[in-house]
Amino acid sequence: MNQELLLNTCGRKEFIGTAALDTIGLVIAGIDETLLNNMHIDTSYRAIGILTSRCGAAGQFMALDEAVKMTDCKVLSIELPLDAKNWGGHGCYCLIGSQDVSNVREAIKIAIRLTDKYVGEVYTCDAGHLEFCFSAQAGDVLVAGLQAEKGKAYGFMTGSPAGIGLVMADNCLKSAPVDLIWQMSPFFGEGDVSTHWSNEVMISFKGDAGNVKEAVMTAREVGMDLLKAMDPNVESVTQPYFDSL
Amino acid sequence: MNQELLLNTCGRKEFIGTAALDTIGLVIAGIDETLLNNMHIDTSYRAIGILTSRCGAAGQFMALDEAVKMTDCKVLSIELPLDAKNWGGHGCYCLIGSQDVSNVREAIKIAIRLTDKYVGEVYTCDAGHLEFCFSAQAGDVLVAGLQAEKGKAYGFMTGSPAGIGLVMADNCLKSAPVDLIWQMSPFFGEGDVSTHWSNEVMISFKGDAGNVKEAVMTAREVGMDLLKAMDPNVESVTQPYFDSL
Amino acid sequence: MNQELLLNTCGRKEFIGTAALDTIGLVIAGIDETLLNNMHIDTSYRAIGILTSRCGAAGQFMALDEAVKMTDCKVLSIELPLDAKNWGGHGCYCLIGSQDVSNVREAIKIAIRLTDKYVGEVYTCDAGHLEFCFSAQAGDVLVAGLQAEKGKAYGFMTGSPAGIGLVMADNCLKSAPVDLIWQMSPFFGEGDVSTHWSNEVMISFKGDAGNVKEAVMTAREVGMDLLKAMDPNVESVTQPYFDSL
Repeated sequence: MNQELLLNTCGRKEFIGTAALDTIGLVIAGIDETLLNNMHIDTSYRAIGILTSRCGAAGQFMALDEAVKMTDCKVLSIELPLDAKNWGGHGCYCLIGSQDVSNVREAIKIAIRLTDKYVGEVYTCDAGHLEFCFSAQAGDVLVAGLQAEKGKAYGFMTGSPAGIGLVMADNCLKSAPVDLIWQMSPFFGEGDVSTHWSNEVMISFKGDAGNVKEAVMTAREVGMDLLKAMDPNVESVTQPYFDSL
Repeated sequence: MNQELLLNTCGRKEFIGTAALDTIGLVIAGIDETLLNNMHIDTSYRAIGILTSRCGAAGQFMALDEAVKMTDCKVLSIELPLDAKNWGGHGCYCLIGSQDVSNVREAIKIAIRLTDKYVGEVYTCDAGHLEFCFSAQAGDVLVAGLQAEKGKAYGFMTGSPAGIGLVMADNCLKSAPVDLIWQMSPFFGEGDVSTHWSNEVMISFKGDAGNVKEAVMTAREVGMDLLKAMDPNVESVTQPYFDSL
Repeated sequence: MNQELLLNTCGRKEFIGTAALDTIGLVIAGIDETLLNNMHIDTSYRAIGILTSRCGAAGQFMALDEAVKMTDCKVLSIELPLDAKNWGGHGCYCLIGSQDVSNVREAIKIAIRLTDKYVGEVYTCDAGHLEFCFSAQAGDVLVAGLQAEKGKAYGFMTGSPAGIGLVMADNCLKSAPVDLIWQMSPFFGEGDVSTHWSNEVMISFKGDAGNVKEAVMTAREVGMDLLKAMDPNVESVTQPYFDSL
């Protein structure tokens, strides 16, 4: 599906490509200065890369995290619109920058290519959704977007409707010795980070890579069982990849 | 439909059952302590009952209110995610607790059974939705979730799009001598309670039970007429029950 | 479609008519005083006109702006619920008032008639949406709802997913010498105005009418190209009208 989507043609020089979950990658070579000064991003970079989607954030963050590690780009801002078409979750709006527009272009190309892989651990059905991240070494995107600790193993899970997320979180934390970074529910965030009333309970955690992976796998198993009790048609957005890690 | 849904099987010990409007009931016998300490609920109970849904809150609150009255459970928190699939309203995320997990389990079982009844006074169509509560004696859930006065007759109405809610509210308050508790619109709540930008005007009120019921019935009649002018296919989620009260 | 919708019958005296994007126009001749006192609108008017919708705000604002100019009504409040069915945008909830209920009724009639015209510059598809305003002379609704400068040429553009809006804004501001009034993204508003986490980047601007129109037309061209790269089925809600201005 991704390959097909990448064939989408668009005459605009800003267009890089599209991916699953209504994701589009864009680059602005030299952004308008008035716009930049009003954007709440503290930067002088005028080459801006954009990864933006209607649905899903965890998979796109994983993809962009890897892309930023492989290029010389800086994470400028990560915003989570309360949009997900008819899920109770988020889309994403991520900006990266560099002195050199070719770095930005390369990073967004990589992120678009990897999005279809990483949204494989996003599961949806008519009754709700589940999203997971597991990174053996968190990079700047996971730090900026989800308060991971740089270079450490990082796990994230969310479940919707929110109560499913709570049962997942409970099993997750009991399954392996990991350190909770934060937990959120519709009304409660942590510091500057918040669900902004999405229908989710989310947690993120760090620790030994094996333990973090174990905890994420447990959350996934519990979430699948419960969401399937609501609607048996729970499916990965693309292809699950955790089992091959 | 409910009976069929209750037959859903799920091997998880936490699973109690499902009901209309993508509602699921769950129980955690001994919640993880780290999770509990970060949950913004002031409790030492570790047996937690969960009633959570994608869509609708009024009907689930009525069901849980009755369930809590019949058991020895305490309302721990009521959150209203800004999710309702493609309505402009809310889902719900309700937590109750007890020293004894069997009380919690019993309460959530009752709440799941009653949800299908009480969502009968939730009406939807492609153009909007209407929700109503009438309780002759408000219990702890209506107090915690909607600022009812405990033990007093309580009425609630909401209409979406918001302007329909305002006309309903106007007719409602003119139809019987009731006391307004609060009114909300997309941007304005009351104290800690807010619509969080849902597309609704809501009011709640108390007074003599006959008057409260009259006011709710008036709101329903007006809401049905106006919503049907937008889309004739307005339907109860299950079966209306006010007329048989 | 509008004509057909206007034929909708409704026995309620408050009903004026319906229009595209699940818009309904309503009038309350003498609003309940308790309700009025709790509405966060500073007014003694009891004749209230209502324009309210599930989806879209820009087109309805244009329609109501013209309607208010043609009657002796005052803008009382403009709220933007975070509802748009399954778009990542807003609906609207607008209240106007007058001493004389016939003025209010006339204004809402005009607004309903004009809504179908002005939502012609709202474009949607499964992957996102675009909305535009261009007014040669902003009136009280554009001032209250979007911080236009009264009597001056005013332009507004939004694109979703948000990153498309940013590229539109960049091209827009580079295409003609206009003055940015504000820009917003999912997390950041300006003063009291905010997207409240919708999946949009929006800007509004003022200046010479020819320049403002040029900037809006550029934004539309860029937005159409990018949104079509995500989903070729981008369509106006009714009929585009900018080209005939």
